[in-house]
Amino acid sequence: MDDPPFFAAEWLNADRPMALADFRGRVLAVEVFQMLCPGCVLHGLPQAQRLSQTFEAADLAVIGLHSVFEHHDGNSRAGLAAFLHEWRIRFPVAMDAPGTTGLPRTMAAWGLEGTPSLVLFDRQGRMRARHFGQVADLALGAEVMELIREARAA
Amino acid sequence: MDDPPFFAAEWLNADRPMALADFRGRVLAVEVFQMLCPGCVLHGLPQAQRLSQTFEAADLAVIGLHSVFEHHDGNSRAGLAAFLHEWRIRFPVAMDAPGTTGLPRTMAAWGLEGTPSLVLFDRQGRMRARHFGQVADLALGAEVMELIREARAA
Amino acid sequence: MDDPPFFAAEWLNADRPMALADFRGRVLAVEVFQMLCPGCVLHGLPQAQRLSQTFEAADLAVIGLHSVFEHHDGNSRAGLAAFLHEWRIRFPVAMDAPGTTGLPRTMAAWGLEGTPSLVLFDRQGRMRARHFGQVADLALGAEVMELIREARAA
Amino acid sequence: MDDPPFFAAEWLNADRPMALADFRGRVLAVEVFQMLCPGCVLHGLPQAQRLSQTFEAADLAVIGLHSVFEHHDGNSRAGLAAFLHEWRIRFPVAMDAPGTTGLPRTMAAWGLEGTPSLVLFDRQGRMRARHFGQVADLALGAEVMELIREARAA
Repeated sequence: MDDPPFFAAEWLNADRPMALADFRGRVLAVEVFQMLCPGCVLHGLPQAQRLSQTFEAADLAVIGLHSVFEHHDGNSRAGLAAFLHEWRIRFPVAMDAPGTTGLPRTMAAWGLEGTPSLVLFDRQGRMRARHFGQVADLALGAEVMELIREARAA
Repeated sequence: MDDPPFFAAEWLNADRPMALADFRGRVLAVEVFQMLCPGCVLHGLPQAQRLSQTFEAADLAVIGLHSVFEHHDGNSRAGLAAFLHEWRIRFPVAMDAPGTTGLPRTMAAWGLEGTPSLVLFDRQGRMRARHFGQVADLALGAEVMELIREARAA
Repeated sequence: MDDPPFFAAEWLNADRPMALADFRGRVLAVEVFQMLCPGCVLHGLPQAQRLSQTFEAADLAVIGLHSVFEHHDGNSRAGLAAFLHEWRIRFPVAMDAPGTTGLPRTMAAWGLEGTPSLVLFDRQGRMRARHFGQVADLALGAEVMELIREARAA
Repeated sequence: MDDPPFFAAEWLNADRPMALADFRGRVLAVEVFQMLCPGCVLHGLPQAQRLSQTFEAADLAVIGLHSVFEHHDGNSRAGLAAFLHEWRIRFPVAMDAPGTTGLPRTMAAWGLEGTPSLVLFDRQGRMRARHFGQVADLALGAEVMELIREARAA
C-alpha cells in the first residue's frame, strides 16, 4: 500500500529528513500546528508532548508538522527553531512544504480544516483519525491504545 | 474464580444492591473516595465522571465506593446523598461496610492506602490496578482500553 | 450607627463567639457558603483563603458564614468541622442561625440570593458589596483595597 | 521631574508613537514581554489583558513592551504583528529599541531581570513597582488600586 502523501520542506529536532514510511510498524501521531496559533500553543502541542511522554517509543511515534496557512511573513525557520526551544518541544518537527494556493501541501493533501489538528496513523501507515481542535486526553489515550493493540494483533 | 471481597453496607444511585459479579463481562472502575477528601472532590470523582462519559457502558462500568476511615461522625448517609446530588454524580455509589478497626471492610480487604483510589477490574472480575492519588487521563484512557481490548480477545 | 444583623448559632475556628462590631475598624469580608455547594468549594472558599493570605490582618478580616438553606439533614456541626479541617480553612466560621422558613437568619436579613456570596463591610461596619457567584480576583483585590484606603481617609 | 527613560523603536496597535509623558495623569502598567517566552504567553500577557479590561481607561493605561534579548533572528515586526493579532492583544505595544549589548535599551535602563516583567508607574510618572515573573491577581488588583487612589489624593 502506498503511504499517504507527506511533503516536508525541512526538519527540526531531527538528524535527517524522514518519510512516513520510516514510522511503519509503530502508531504515529502527527500534531499539525502553527507557532502563532493560540489553540496549538495552549492545547495541541502540550497534548502531543504528553503523548510522547506517556507511551513507549516502540509503540507510538510523535512528530509535529508546522503547516503555515496564514501570516506567512511572520513565520520563519529561525522563529520556529526558537519557539521549539523555548517551549521545550523535543519531538521531530517537519515544516510543511508551501503550496501554490497559500495552503501548505501536506495539509491540503490530508484535507485538514485548520490547526491544531492531530492526525493518527496505524502501524501499517494508514491514516485512521483526524481531530481538528481539542480532543480530551481520556478519549485520546483510549484511541491510541486501540491502535497500538489492534496492530499487535494484525 | 472467586470474586474479590466487596462489602457494601448500602447503595445510592442504584435500584438495588449489587455484587462485583454483577459487573462480570465488563471492565469495572471503582472510585474509592470520601466526600470530605479534597483530592477526591477535585480530581478523583471528576475523573470517574469523565470515565463514565467517555466509554461505552457495555465496555466499562463505573461505580463509587464511599470508604470512610476518618471523621466518621462527620459523615452520614444523608450527607453523602446530598453531596452526590450537588456534585451531579450519577453513577452507583456503595457505602463501604464499617470494619472493626476504623478502616472500612472493602478498603481493608483490597489493601488500599487511602483516598482517592481508582481500582480497575477486568471482564473476568480480577483486580488489575490500584491507583492511589492522581493518575493522568491519557495514561488511564490507554489502560482502560487495554483492559477492554484484552477482554474481547479472551 | 447600628451594625447589620448577624445571627451566629455557633463558631468554629474561633476561641469565642464574635459580633460584627468586633471587626469595626477593619474591612471585613464574609464568605457565605455551604459545605455541599460545589461553587463554594471550587471558587468561593479558595478565594476567601487567598484574601486572608494577601491582605494584612490589620486591614482586612476574613470570616466564613455557613448558611445552610438546603440538605439540612446532610449538614452537621461535626461534618462542617471535618470539612474545614480537610480543606485547611483556618479563618473563623460562624454557623448561621436557622430561621423559621428554611432560610437561615443572617442570610435572610442580608437579602442574599444563594451561595457562594461574598459580602464586604467597610471599617465603619456598613455593608458595601454583596457578590453572588464568582468575582474575579483582579476586581476583588481592587475593591478591597479601595475600602481599605477609603477607610484610612475617613 | 524627568520621566524614566523609554526607547521605542516602533509601535503596534497605536496610531502614533507615544512617550511615557503621554500617560501622565493615569497609572500606567507596562507588560514587558517576548513573544517567544512561555511565561509571557501563559501568564503575563493574559494578566495585562485582564488589567486593561478591569480598570477604567481614565485610571489605568496598559501597554506592552516587546523587549527581545534572545533569539533575535526569530523575532520580526511581521511576526510580532501576527502574534498580537492571533492572541487578540489590543493594547498598544512598543518594540524596545535594540541596544549595543544584546539587551534592548529600555529593558536595560529599567534594570529588569527578564520577561515577563510588569512595571507600574504612578500618575506622576514615577516607576513604583517592577514584578519579574508571576504576580497574583488579587495582590495586583490591590496594588493598582492603591496607586489609583493615592494619585487622586495627590
